[in-house]
Amino acid sequence: MGRTTGIVIFDEVEELDFAGPWEVFTAARHGHEADRVLTIAPTQGVIRCAKGLRVLPDCCFDDAPPLDVLLVPGGEGTRREAGNPAFLDWLREAAPRCTWVTSVCTGSLLLHAAGIAKGRRITTHWSFVEALRNLGDATVLENRRYVRDGNLVTAAGVSAGIDMALWVVGQIYGVDHARLVQKWIEYDPAPPYAADV
Amino acid sequence: MGRTTGIVIFDEVEELDFAGPWEVFTAARHGHEADRVLTIAPTQGVIRCAKGLRVLPDCCFDDAPPLDVLLVPGGEGTRREAGNPAFLDWLREAAPRCTWVTSVCTGSLLLHAAGIAKGRRITTHWSFVEALRNLGDATVLENRRYVRDGNLVTAAGVSAGIDMALWVVGQIYGVDHARLVQKWIEYDPAPPYAADV
Repeated sequence: MGRTTGIVIFDEVEELDFAGPWEVFTAARHGHEADRVLTIAPTQGVIRCAKGLRVLPDCCFDDAPPLDVLLVPGGEGTRREAGNPAFLDWLREAAPRCTWVTSVCTGSLLLHAAGIAKGRRITTHWSFVEALRNLGDATVLENRRYVRDGNLVTAAGVSAGIDMALWVVGQIYGVDHARLVQKWIEYDPAPPYAADV
Repeated sequence: MGRTTGIVIFDEVEELDFAGPWEVFTAARHGHEADRVLTIAPTQGVIRCAKGLRVLPDCCFDDAPPLDVLLVPGGEGTRREAGNPAFLDWLREAAPRCTWVTSVCTGSLLLHAAGIAKGRRITTHWSFVEALRNLGDATVLENRRYVRDGNLVTAAGVSAGIDMALWVVGQIYGVDHARLVQKWIEYDPAPPYAADV
């Protein structure tokens, strides 16, 4: 019986927040085909992402299996789900069984709202650091690609989820395997506007 | 009437190949809301990506509007579509009207098969460089995140599509706007295994 990574998706989830880690965790299955990666939505049916991409989830809260890794992405929809008791209850149920509990971007708002980040060091998208800090109950760090506190690993915005997922893959499958995944997805970026053009 | 960016998707398209540029081009719509970004599939119905993600396309070859930017991602499905006359005919019809014709990863195989890369300098995923070179009719460069030859811009594997899309956004909307997009998606990666751990 392999490991199961569950990536939560919901209306107005930010596309790259989940698609980056999805690519990393699914690529890491090479040589570990008993493991699986699933998208999990609150209910059945099409998810409409923040930028309009429409995705069919693999399962929903009611029929999701126990998870080894839980990943909560961000996006505009987090503001709605942070006030949705059914969503937060599911997170509170799923997280304690997981080896790793992770978030990307404003996904940390949902972990916070569920009480899972209480007293922990976390991070989020740079534009949301102050708002999350003002909620209290957690220490919000900034200018980090991801923050690990025990088994809780929270990433900064959007692309930072890829860095975080590579780190978690390194913890699960070993650093050499994570390096192979990194090479396979050519995550060795040289964005043209990082330095002067 | 705004610009239209069309991202082609097909069965076994690699997820991050299209989701990375999708995030970049849709984020670039901020302040340019008349512009749109569409996923375009050969036919109607659900697309099953290379790693199993299921996506509903916005339109199909028969009802896609004229495009300003065409993006062809890679993935295992490119091997099948490279022998699909209907797919290649559509590319040949769409590309000449575009300001920019682009590919990610093995998407360059499809541009090559359609004759669009004939005599041009192009690139692809590192594992596919030799195979593409052996097909002839194009100069295949390696160890570049993306290669621009006239209005043809081909990216290396998977993540390199993000770098390429940021460059194209810089050409269309200006470098300052591309920098804002890069900052918004926090594409300033520090993958943990790029250097020693």
